[in-house]
Amino acid sequence: MPVDPNAAIEITGYQWVPPFAEGRIKDLRIRWALEEIGRPYRERLIGGIFEEKPPEYLADQPFGQVPVYKEGDVALFESGAILLHIGEQDERLLPRGAAARGRAISWMIAALNSVEPMLQTLVILSVAGADRDWQEAAKDAARPFAEKRLAQLSRALGDRLWLCDDFTIGDLVMIDVLRAVPTPMLTAHPNLVAYVERGTQRPAFERALKAQLASYAKHAPQAA
Amino acid sequence: MPVDPNAAIEITGYQWVPPFAEGRIKDLRIRWALEEIGRPYRERLIGGIFEEKPPEYLADQPFGQVPVYKEGDVALFESGAILLHIGEQDERLLPRGAAARGRAISWMIAALNSVEPMLQTLVILSVAGADRDWQEAAKDAARPFAEKRLAQLSRALGDRLWLCDDFTIGDLVMIDVLRAVPTPMLTAHPNLVAYVERGTQRPAFERALKAQLASYAKHAPQAA
Repeated sequence: MPVDPNAAIEITGYQWVPPFAEGRIKDLRIRWALEEIGRPYRERLIGGIFEEKPPEYLADQPFGQVPVYKEGDVALFESGAILLHIGEQDERLLPRGAAARGRAISWMIAALNSVEPMLQTLVILSVAGADRDWQEAAKDAARPFAEKRLAQLSRALGDRLWLCDDFTIGDLVMIDVLRAVPTPMLTAHPNLVAYVERGTQRPAFERALKAQLASYAKHAPQAA
Repeated sequence: MPVDPNAAIEITGYQWVPPFAEGRIKDLRIRWALEEIGRPYRERLIGGIFEEKPPEYLADQPFGQVPVYKEGDVALFESGAILLHIGEQDERLLPRGAAARGRAISWMIAALNSVEPMLQTLVILSVAGADRDWQEAAKDAARPFAEKRLAQLSRALGDRLWLCDDFTIGDLVMIDVLRAVPTPMLTAHPNLVAYVERGTQRPAFERALKAQLASYAKHAPQAA
């Protein structure tokens, strides 16, 4: 496991999150990428997911989220920007040729801007609409926008293993986005189910998730 | 104006869109970037925004959207991926140094994945909730998610001209995202209003918008 207090790379994560958020926080994507290429990193664990962050943290991450990535004089926020930076250093995550590289980056941005937002709308309605009588009607109306994207993605993937010739940061983000899709929406597309399984069965993913959950277990509030 | 039928770069756009979508289609971002650096491009205009796209178009753009970008053997989709490619060729859009480059890319991804999705939820509720009695209640509940992001962005921008030292692809995307924010939400933050004005008053933006609208005017349906 490449968590190493003396590593040159530092990423931020939360000390602890409530069970519903376990495995959903985006430092997982960075841990996964670094595990894929065997690069060590150190963790800087910050306070709760819903706490206001201090000004010095907001200087690094304007939205108060995790992860922040630091390496020498490079300081990045947004998991997509961090993955691009990591990918540029290792062709196991991002191929070198302009055409293949551009295709992989197109897929990563598609995951972030064409697929994840449609699913995030459903999450926002789940949170903002909790216990409201319109919640189910609103989610029913918004769900087809997400379903259309999943159908288009399923068709594009077809029977291939990955979105490009080999596993890239495009797959890494897309698979993590798909992990959060409610079961009936995902199981409508068996090739997407298999794709997510293929990704999450990679040893690097398993190690990354284990490392993220380890910090939550260590900092879990004591039962009263 | 760099629209040139013999240019090496091809981008796709729509022949025509209904008035509500004028100036909102994302090929505008690419036209803007190419105008900023004076690089010519040719247009490939495709059929309506709501039409099913033929399989050969879906091979280039799996979600049937615009723009697609082609240049030699490079074929890209997703405006963020295209802007990164263009920025890498010209430091007027993306600085060269690793730290400054990373910061600009972080802001571009923030626009695409932390700000735009919150606004897109409101758009989805406007479309999916049209004429439904729950629409206003759902939008009222979802709006604070977008307002929080705008407040965080306003604080991060402060009294600076651009998100980084100079104008970058991060500003280009963020300003285009903010252009779609409903007036009362945006005017709560005078520095964001001024930021959007600063961006949209750039001659390159004005030329890009004019070029996009010119094709719509040319292909507008004839009044019955």
